[in-house]
Amino acid sequence: MTKVTRERVEAAYRALGSGDRDKIVEYYAEDLRWLVPGNHPLAGWYESLDAFLDLMARAGKLTGGSFTMDREVIMVGDDCSADVCRNRGLRAGAPEDSRSPYERMDYMVFHFMRWRDGRIVEGHDGLFGDDATLFSQFWAPFAPDGTRIAD
Amino acid sequence: MTKVTRERVEAAYRALGSGDRDKIVEYYAEDLRWLVPGNHPLAGWYESLDAFLDLMARAGKLTGGSFTMDREVIMVGDDCSADVCRNRGLRAGAPEDSRSPYERMDYMVFHFMRWRDGRIVEGHDGLFGDDATLFSQFWAPFAPDGTRIAD
Amino acid sequence: MTKVTRERVEAAYRALGSGDRDKIVEYYAEDLRWLVPGNHPLAGWYESLDAFLDLMARAGKLTGGSFTMDREVIMVGDDCSADVCRNRGLRAGAPEDSRSPYERMDYMVFHFMRWRDGRIVEGHDGLFGDDATLFSQFWAPFAPDGTRIAD
Amino acid sequence: MTKVTRERVEAAYRALGSGDRDKIVEYYAEDLRWLVPGNHPLAGWYESLDAFLDLMARAGKLTGGSFTMDREVIMVGDDCSADVCRNRGLRAGAPEDSRSPYERMDYMVFHFMRWRDGRIVEGHDGLFGDDATLFSQFWAPFAPDGTRIAD
Repeated sequence: MTKVTRERVEAAYRALGSGDRDKIVEYYAEDLRWLVPGNHPLAGWYESLDAFLDLMARAGKLTGGSFTMDREVIMVGDDCSADVCRNRGLRAGAPEDSRSPYERMDYMVFHFMRWRDGRIVEGHDGLFGDDATLFSQFWAPFAPDGTRIAD
Repeated sequence: MTKVTRERVEAAYRALGSGDRDKIVEYYAEDLRWLVPGNHPLAGWYESLDAFLDLMARAGKLTGGSFTMDREVIMVGDDCSADVCRNRGLRAGAPEDSRSPYERMDYMVFHFMRWRDGRIVEGHDGLFGDDATLFSQFWAPFAPDGTRIAD
Repeated sequence: MTKVTRERVEAAYRALGSGDRDKIVEYYAEDLRWLVPGNHPLAGWYESLDAFLDLMARAGKLTGGSFTMDREVIMVGDDCSADVCRNRGLRAGAPEDSRSPYERMDYMVFHFMRWRDGRIVEGHDGLFGDDATLFSQFWAPFAPDGTRIAD
Repeated sequence: MTKVTRERVEAAYRALGSGDRDKIVEYYAEDLRWLVPGNHPLAGWYESLDAFLDLMARAGKLTGGSFTMDREVIMVGDDCSADVCRNRGLRAGAPEDSRSPYERMDYMVFHFMRWRDGRIVEGHDGLFGDDATLFSQFWAPFAPDGTRIAD
């Protein structure tokens, strides 16, 4: 059994950030399941590493590449880890100075992950305070004035 | 100017229910705009009669044809009308006896419509109590256990 | 039976605005029930005219007297009416230029009211688009940073 | 500096469960801050250990003492911990077999806590999937039919 350590969590994030699938599969299982919170269009379980990577690509596209995660803390336990990140992003096409919750993301997100044999097999995103409301506003299928946005 | 009357509102709903586009355009403008409440995948403005009819078709498909609206009251004013309907439906594939808000719709919906020259040019759906929350649950892109549903 | 007319709806609002209970009871039944949307602290059914007037007072206090309703249209039907208002307000203590949904209200609200013998016996507030979400944010029991606000 | 360990997290929960304030202050700082998610009546920051204990008492009362937390995993990091619990409860007065989200709580909750010198100084509750929506329904100030509930 490979113990879950802070170093391994950090290495997993680096692999994911590299976009190199060969590196990613060292840390993420092919049968990974990932749950996105809320009831907006991106919410629900993603079943497989490919579905998860498609989600990452879609989130990147919907934010015009502005989406960033800064890890603040990492915690580990038996076959599991949690981390808290500050996530920031702006919906593609939104004014740079927008403060609308439908266009601007800037809040803490936590990730709870279950590991098996050194790889992540299950992940949950979560939010604090009333940020789950803001998160569903951010990923709503429309601009602040309600105009629907094509995927 | 064609006055908005209860009879005309009823006739508009009958035309919409018939699915006959020639009849529909007697009551709905080609440049109709319609706002669906919430921040789920179907929410936002539909801009054009065709977009609105596509929405109706999509709602019908997502509910396996079980979606119904029973009008309870109709109110009219200057170039506008409002009506209250009891809307019911079950998500396609859900168990017949499901009571989950993610699968069962059964609540009152308010429609506010602006008319011009005898045709509806703008519509808003509205909900009462905490039904807006239930509505976003119903149209969420996943089953009660979070499993994502293909469109 | 007293017919519901636009004039009577307007007179009811004027009576309510006057704060004069003798005038109010000409238009609002003593057993009035009123439903406030959302799941924030003010949401739910208010059962009796006094409970409704207490609610109005509480909303006034929570907005430091800044709460206003501008009626845009009135619609009438058999023993019922609906109207659409633009509601604006700022939470008491919030910065004058706040744009936070937790502090600033500025959206359309509809009211659906049932009448009996010339008096309102049941009322529902409702919202369009994703404004039900904004409404629950506005009446949340905390400031934008989550600090709880005493009633 | 007292290191945060799984044992210390478990001891903190035991102390809290004992209701013995002398034991509680061994693990929780007097200036504890705790953030409850959502925009329902209980949401927001609780500022002080006493405010937090009042919240616990209020949650217990609103659930008629049925509220339980079963810890599933504990994770630790530098001066912080996270745990995942299955929280269950029924609103006081609700039918024993209620499945309404306004009356029944049964989902996973994530706690993220910051520690200082061996005591918890800050806590955040978090939820997964669409449970933040269910959580605001559960703590809504009304029964499933909208009837307001006195505190």
